[in-house]
Amino acid sequence: VTGPEARTAAERKADTLAKLTAPAADGWVATAGDGAHLVPLSVAWIDDRIVIALEARSVTARNLTGTRTARVALGPTRDVVLVDAVLEASHDVAAAPPELAEAYAAQSDWDPRADADGYVFLVLRPQRVQAWTEVHELAGRTIMRAGEWVV
Amino acid sequence: VTGPEARTAAERKADTLAKLTAPAADGWVATAGDGAHLVPLSVAWIDDRIVIALEARSVTARNLTGTRTARVALGPTRDVVLVDAVLEASHDVAAAPPELAEAYAAQSDWDPRADADGYVFLVLRPQRVQAWTEVHELAGRTIMRAGEWVV
Repeated sequence: VTGPEARTAAERKADTLAKLTAPAADGWVATAGDGAHLVPLSVAWIDDRIVIALEARSVTARNLTGTRTARVALGPTRDVVLVDAVLEASHDVAAAPPELAEAYAAQSDWDPRADADGYVFLVLRPQRVQAWTEVHELAGRTIMRAGEWVV
Repeated sequence: VTGPEARTAAERKADTLAKLTAPAADGWVATAGDGAHLVPLSVAWIDDRIVIALEARSVTARNLTGTRTARVALGPTRDVVLVDAVLEASHDVAAAPPELAEAYAAQSDWDPRADADGYVFLVLRPQRVQAWTEVHELAGRTIMRAGEWVV
């Protein structure tokens, strides 16, 4: 019996980058604070970082400012990308580097600058990335370790 | 200009139950421990509880045993259900109530009893449920509070 073939690490990386760079990409952003928090947010992939835009007073922003870590999931549950990331930078939207704000607006389907009051861009640097579809792809799912792609 | 219409609370509840009871339903399960953890897992809806089956030694099971709380997301990112739940019970799969194991296997596309060694069923009791599609549905998104449906 021949089961489904597992993708190579290079294929998984290419598929992961396709998800991260897709127009209007969304991710599930999990953070820890007073328990686990989880929300869907638009994501942009800018200079090898995941960038999110959200209210500074939101639970996710406050958790990230506290713990400086998040786990971000992309894709449907049977074709997943999981990114463990650390908070590298935070910028008030109104004062953000113009090239960051432009790149975010270019990928996303909204522009936080239109409603900047109280919003921040949070820049998340990936440390570990896992990508798998189903059980046959669990082996070999880690495609970035300690901030470095394995391929 | 007429925007998209927001669903009523009753419609959101019906759509939520459809997601929870769908064959082979999956959820994103966020827990807190040493940072935020997030994984996709099969879910079953049994007696108004979310039931998951997983290795007792997994990060998710250990976090849940520690904090006794999880946040579970279902649906794509623009048609979401978010369930804040508490751990109500834990059963080793091999020793679980037969009706629980039967109900899980009936909804899921796998039967944990086939590979029971080291696996547990965790029974999660919803406390708060939110359901929304996009911005126009943010108002009215909470359809369960303190364990009670609002409709």
